[in-house]
Amino acid sequence: MNTSFFQDLLQSITERGRQLLESREPPPGNAQALAEASRKLISSHGEASGVALAQQVLCAYRDCPQAQQKAFFDILLKDFAPPHDVLAEACQRYLDDPSASNITALFQASEPPRQELFRRLNQAPGGTAELIAMRRLLLQELKGRPELAAVDHDLQHLLASWFNRGFLVLRRIDWSTPASILEKIIKYEAVHAIKDWDDLRSRLQPADRRCFAFFHPALADEPLIFVEVALTRSMPGAIAEILEQHPEAQPAEAPDAAVFYSISNCQDGLRGISFGNFLIKQVVEELAREVPGLRQFVTLSPVPGLRRWLDSLGDNAQLGAAAAECLKSLKPDAPPPPRLEQPLLALAAEYFLHAKNGAGLPLDPVARFHLGNGARLERLNWRGDLSATGLRQAAGLMVNYRYELRQIEKNHEAYANQGAVTASPEVRKLATLSAKTNR
Amino acid sequence: MNTSFFQDLLQSITERGRQLLESREPPPGNAQALAEASRKLISSHGEASGVALAQQVLCAYRDCPQAQQKAFFDILLKDFAPPHDVLAEACQRYLDDPSASNITALFQASEPPRQELFRRLNQAPGGTAELIAMRRLLLQELKGRPELAAVDHDLQHLLASWFNRGFLVLRRIDWSTPASILEKIIKYEAVHAIKDWDDLRSRLQPADRRCFAFFHPALADEPLIFVEVALTRSMPGAIAEILEQHPEAQPAEAPDAAVFYSISNCQDGLRGISFGNFLIKQVVEELAREVPGLRQFVTLSPVPGLRRWLDSLGDNAQLGAAAAECLKSLKPDAPPPPRLEQPLLALAAEYFLHAKNGAGLPLDPVARFHLGNGARLERLNWRGDLSATGLRQAAGLMVNYRYELRQIEKNHEAYANQGAVTASPEVRKLATLSAKTNR
Amino acid sequence: MNTSFFQDLLQSITERGRQLLESREPPPGNAQALAEASRKLISSHGEASGVALAQQVLCAYRDCPQAQQKAFFDILLKDFAPPHDVLAEACQRYLDDPSASNITALFQASEPPRQELFRRLNQAPGGTAELIAMRRLLLQELKGRPELAAVDHDLQHLLASWFNRGFLVLRRIDWSTPASILEKIIKYEAVHAIKDWDDLRSRLQPADRRCFAFFHPALADEPLIFVEVALTRSMPGAIAEILEQHPEAQPAEAPDAAVFYSISNCQDGLRGISFGNFLIKQVVEELAREVPGLRQFVTLSPVPGLRRWLDSLGDNAQLGAAAAECLKSLKPDAPPPPRLEQPLLALAAEYFLHAKNGAGLPLDPVARFHLGNGARLERLNWRGDLSATGLRQAAGLMVNYRYELRQIEKNHEAYANQGAVTASPEVRKLATLSAKTNR
Amino acid sequence: MNTSFFQDLLQSITERGRQLLESREPPPGNAQALAEASRKLISSHGEASGVALAQQVLCAYRDCPQAQQKAFFDILLKDFAPPHDVLAEACQRYLDDPSASNITALFQASEPPRQELFRRLNQAPGGTAELIAMRRLLLQELKGRPELAAVDHDLQHLLASWFNRGFLVLRRIDWSTPASILEKIIKYEAVHAIKDWDDLRSRLQPADRRCFAFFHPALADEPLIFVEVALTRSMPGAIAEILEQHPEAQPAEAPDAAVFYSISNCQDGLRGISFGNFLIKQVVEELAREVPGLRQFVTLSPVPGLRRWLDSLGDNAQLGAAAAECLKSLKPDAPPPPRLEQPLLALAAEYFLHAKNGAGLPLDPVARFHLGNGARLERLNWRGDLSATGLRQAAGLMVNYRYELRQIEKNHEAYANQGAVTASPEVRKLATLSAKTNR
Repeated sequence: MNTSFFQDLLQSITERGRQLLESREPPPGNAQALAEASRKLISSHGEASGVALAQQVLCAYRDCPQAQQKAFFDILLKDFAPPHDVLAEACQRYLDDPSASNITALFQASEPPRQELFRRLNQAPGGTAELIAMRRLLLQELKGRPELAAVDHDLQHLLASWFNRGFLVLRRIDWSTPASILEKIIKYEAVHAIKDWDDLRSRLQPADRRCFAFFHPALADEPLIFVEVALTRSMPGAIAEILEQHPEAQPAEAPDAAVFYSISNCQDGLRGISFGNFLIKQVVEELAREVPGLRQFVTLSPVPGLRRWLDSLGDNAQLGAAAAECLKSLKPDAPPPPRLEQPLLALAAEYFLHAKNGAGLPLDPVARFHLGNGARLERLNWRGDLSATGLRQAAGLMVNYRYELRQIEKNHEAYANQGAVTASPEVRKLATLSAKTNR
Repeated sequence: MNTSFFQDLLQSITERGRQLLESREPPPGNAQALAEASRKLISSHGEASGVALAQQVLCAYRDCPQAQQKAFFDILLKDFAPPHDVLAEACQRYLDDPSASNITALFQASEPPRQELFRRLNQAPGGTAELIAMRRLLLQELKGRPELAAVDHDLQHLLASWFNRGFLVLRRIDWSTPASILEKIIKYEAVHAIKDWDDLRSRLQPADRRCFAFFHPALADEPLIFVEVALTRSMPGAIAEILEQHPEAQPAEAPDAAVFYSISNCQDGLRGISFGNFLIKQVVEELAREVPGLRQFVTLSPVPGLRRWLDSLGDNAQLGAAAAECLKSLKPDAPPPPRLEQPLLALAAEYFLHAKNGAGLPLDPVARFHLGNGARLERLNWRGDLSATGLRQAAGLMVNYRYELRQIEKNHEAYANQGAVTASPEVRKLATLSAKTNR
Repeated sequence: MNTSFFQDLLQSITERGRQLLESREPPPGNAQALAEASRKLISSHGEASGVALAQQVLCAYRDCPQAQQKAFFDILLKDFAPPHDVLAEACQRYLDDPSASNITALFQASEPPRQELFRRLNQAPGGTAELIAMRRLLLQELKGRPELAAVDHDLQHLLASWFNRGFLVLRRIDWSTPASILEKIIKYEAVHAIKDWDDLRSRLQPADRRCFAFFHPALADEPLIFVEVALTRSMPGAIAEILEQHPEAQPAEAPDAAVFYSISNCQDGLRGISFGNFLIKQVVEELAREVPGLRQFVTLSPVPGLRRWLDSLGDNAQLGAAAAECLKSLKPDAPPPPRLEQPLLALAAEYFLHAKNGAGLPLDPVARFHLGNGARLERLNWRGDLSATGLRQAAGLMVNYRYELRQIEKNHEAYANQGAVTASPEVRKLATLSAKTNR
Repeated sequence: MNTSFFQDLLQSITERGRQLLESREPPPGNAQALAEASRKLISSHGEASGVALAQQVLCAYRDCPQAQQKAFFDILLKDFAPPHDVLAEACQRYLDDPSASNITALFQASEPPRQELFRRLNQAPGGTAELIAMRRLLLQELKGRPELAAVDHDLQHLLASWFNRGFLVLRRIDWSTPASILEKIIKYEAVHAIKDWDDLRSRLQPADRRCFAFFHPALADEPLIFVEVALTRSMPGAIAEILEQHPEAQPAEAPDAAVFYSISNCQDGLRGISFGNFLIKQVVEELAREVPGLRQFVTLSPVPGLRRWLDSLGDNAQLGAAAAECLKSLKPDAPPPPRLEQPLLALAAEYFLHAKNGAGLPLDPVARFHLGNGARLERLNWRGDLSATGLRQAAGLMVNYRYELRQIEKNHEAYANQGAVTASPEVRKLATLSAKTNR
């Protein structure tokens, strides 16, 4: 109740983070100068200067032309790698005597000095945000220059440690959230775009809507990931039921289902550090506590890879007549006609249960995410999303994944160890049907 | 101004941290069971279970008899070390081809799996506090069992990264701070004990007193380190002037000096992770902003090693007559007589400037801390602390160190590179005197 | 610094205020039932029932048809007036013996019981907001039924006491203010309409913009009054300079003027309770502290009554030729041509300095507000507002009033005692000119 | 959830309230000068000066010698009363024509100008606290000078309106409450003195203890009234069970009773403005929500008037032998011997049920408070409080009053209308016994 003292703590972090990084004269803005200042920062000099030097380096980096920033990545790769002779000697010593202390020494010798550099840069006010921005650029650069992976590894290693779930904070986002946060929700929504502030309000303000986000204390005005939830009576089959609801409409009955209809990652610079699993599970717990009548926690999810897979089937001789006709009849920009319902659902079941990528996992990326979290594929929804995107990606199909807390570990284990796709009997039956009809 | 949204963030962390870790049935409380649950936690199983399994392991650990906790350390040492074959192969590969990717692979192979275990434990509510408690016990155990250093290295490595200065928050501690925090200030004060709540108030409430502490968001109701400050007119020479001031007394004139008269670390489990340097420098900045008239930032510090060193001089033939007489006349529990003032100060100057430990650094630990921060030794104060402790440790002597922001880097460099002790001309002169008189 | 405990206090008020007033079974919704429940509430019964009965009456009132609400006003007027015999006796007693205790008795006897009713209604959660809503309706009704003035007097008397400036809180409104507050700023802006959220942001987010509002703890999510401020280099003459500035544009130089370009009252139900005077003066103090370079505090204000007055002049024979021509040439919806500048400014100066209402005060309501606050009329701006409204009301003219803290009392006294209009020499000269040219 | 914006509101009030009232040069410190500045404050001058003049008057008053403050009360009485001619005319007009508007005019004419003075003083930062301090002194003075009642009436009238229950905030007081608040709890506890901070902690920190206080936003660091509660298994009969419990002891079973064992008013200057009734009822609601197992809400209360009443019985011939013997045997400073249990309880029942004051209400002030709130007298506890105070006031007796929400209105009505004392059958039986035995 009286925990407000602790709340104030954060203000300080936030305010430090917002301080413009301009108070100090930065060193000249090129990669060589950055490298030199960076070397000074990880020397004993850096200890004495407190955070001032870190602040200078970050400012100088930020004010550099992008070409120099990229050149700086190269220097990080080459000049801030472990010194060869030291590391080689540590290897040899370990090979000669694999003692605990030699392992420790080897671990230390193999840690690139750029990790220490990143840690020291993080000491500056706003440092964490700058490092995330740095990694965003690095990830872009990485596509064309895979050798930078070593630098990215170090940055990701630290960020993953710093953004440990124990340091994240779940916050409800609602209509009394600061506008500066809300405009980021509009910006970062990646599944069903938010058109404007009225659209945003219709997702936050009604009594049957919820939105939750993870935040990190050192990045307090930036959500990391957020999920939008609708509380409904039974599991919905079409996104329009949710998005087009009138904001003032009161839910007719007490809701029994929580529907996660949109999950968006916000920070490109934190790619590969997974928050979604934790977010969904904590929101399930929060909602179960707040709304005791809830009986099911489900998603209403897109199927981004379905059309591509259907197209890849081509004139597959093994396809049954119904399936072949279905493939032929689908239009890229029109809802499929009613007669295609059964064959399309059957093909989709096939897609989820049997179409695999190189790693033996489901082709569909959204399926991989939810199944990997331990959810089960619950239902396929014909005409779930008739928007242009919905038709183009999945011929209008949407699916529900179901999170049942008691089954999550079992489902996940099966998925993680054998790539097994847990699906409801209904979906399994469709797949059988598919086998029968299509082949 | 309107940053309160961000403040609320922290409440969530804090409340999670306070949840009793008892909601889940812990596994049986012995080291083997802990090890088994820990293995499960770092397997794919751990991903699915969210934080529940981490919580179980932490509860089980905490509820174990201490003997089992210590036995668990052994298992961490042996069974959660990097697998030899994998690491050996990574070494060999690196030696064959020292490429960037082989360095990355080697770094990963040499990271003991217990680091991942600690990271996953940290995901549980209150996990950070439990890991700090774990390290406190480990440090005790380490004294008798140095082989555990490898485990400690991993824990310290992570804690140092998590308690990066960029994540710390400076907070003023005053009389409107929650009592639950204030009682910890009483408990952790390590230099001049706080007798009771009235004594505490006399250090917090007067207009010329300040206290600041660092906090970490994940440990929000525990200070990490704090410093007590008196604002005075000129640099004080005796602690009694500060501690015995009447709380209601108003400072006669505008203060021109900020005196750091007590710095205390609070968390044994964070030993070796240094906060003091950052704390002093940020408090200097805060005070300079708040009280524009301040001209000097100094300490009033104990000299814990002086008497021990004096005793060690014994019948050193090289000592001058005055010094020898001084040594003979000092009583362990009475203030030294006036005639000893000059010889004692001269000996003390000698102690600071020339008495070195094995590493070539000053013998006095408090001197090492402040000189290492870039402060300079400003003045020796005869009869600075006539309490029992003051007499026993330093024959009543106290000293002032001075933090002058523009000199800090230079002083620190000289100290770090050559072990040079920066001292005021006054102190240097005393040392010369010492040479003349004593030898 | 650590005042967060006190901050939490308000949350409770706010949350109580938001509780839907529906938990209790309200009495049947008609005026007679309301009256009966109200009588019970001011009896001893009301003391025992705590706030529950107050809550019931408020709910019943709120859920009544408007016709019944208005009928309830009549009952308040007649049945909740002081009992005649008691009051007559108190009068007689006072006339017989004008002692202090008889004055007290008379004061008590003349206080209508509806005041106690309003006080008890205010005890319910959200009661203050309901009473304000009640007065809003009452004020509408009052226009056609002046006898209700006695009821309004009582309600205003209490609200004025409760909204005493000592209980108001100044808050900055910025882009990190909750959206639920910001949408009210959009709604209540009465001078220069805010088109949408982007327009709002352009008034809040740029470094040279400020917005401040007064709030009352019992009405915490409703601003009472707010003012929008632009920090500029010199006093601006046209509103477009301010409203059309690009949000990202950085002010070229350090600002030396704070321009109050829009002040809006928010609560109709608090009409007649003046906040603007206090608001402007406290904002002047806040800004003077925050931005030390500010040298002048001025408004950029509309002149809502100018055109009406000009029209009323008609064929006034006393007007000079220039003025007469000016009057004839003005178009209601087009900017006046350049040749009219001098005559129009002269007429406007005349309007400000000499056109009076029945009470001998300036005709212009905005002038009465600022002059009554002690500001002086500083400058008339030809083509200050070429919007449709600006043209229709004032032929495009805007004016600056200047708040100079040291002159405020003197100006106010002259205005309050003699209706004197303090104006700059420049404006006075225009009026002289007007006299010369126009007559 | 995100209501923190509103929380911040209060900080501003609080900080304004704490500003030392010293920034302005106060007028000379005597009653005449105060009166003159006060007259200026309620003139039109006061409007222009904003709060500055109010601040000056308050400072001047506060810095006056007490004799001058008291002299100022006289001036308030005489010179800030309604002007006789105006009021007499208003009376006459009303007597001639008792119209609604004449009532309004009469009410306005009879309101002493000092009310407006107090309202304007309240506009200054910290004004409310100063007015409360002013009334504290006035109440002391009033004892010897009853004519000041008219001044007190006006001050109380305003304070009662401003401290309307709708503006009060209930806050839990616990061990994380700011020390500055907690020291006031120690200071204001009026029933069972709190010895020191450890004693305080033992009343706040254990899981089965609660403390709640009312606060007012304009007086945010001062509790108005607080109640201490113990959650117990069944209704306790002796205060020692509660006060001597070891802080670490865990309650054996889930509590079913909430025991209000101490209620203390904090502000002398708010005497006569009742908060206790509201406090108890809201705390009952809070606890019923928080601890669903609670079945009874009772007090454990002192009987401050019992011994005095017993002593007054003297050699009353009507007393039965047992009672007479009981009266003779009671010692002022020793627990009564076991044989007195029945006669003493019977006398006490008599005291509660039949001993009345001049107004026909129970003699016992604590009884009047709880019965007036609608509680019922539940049980008499022999040897409830064997402390010196307990023996001296009530021969060791304590009683329980019971708050049953559904009975409160009925009990209160009976008490308010007929002075009826609602008591349990058990207590009634003791009274009958008393009648039999004693007479």
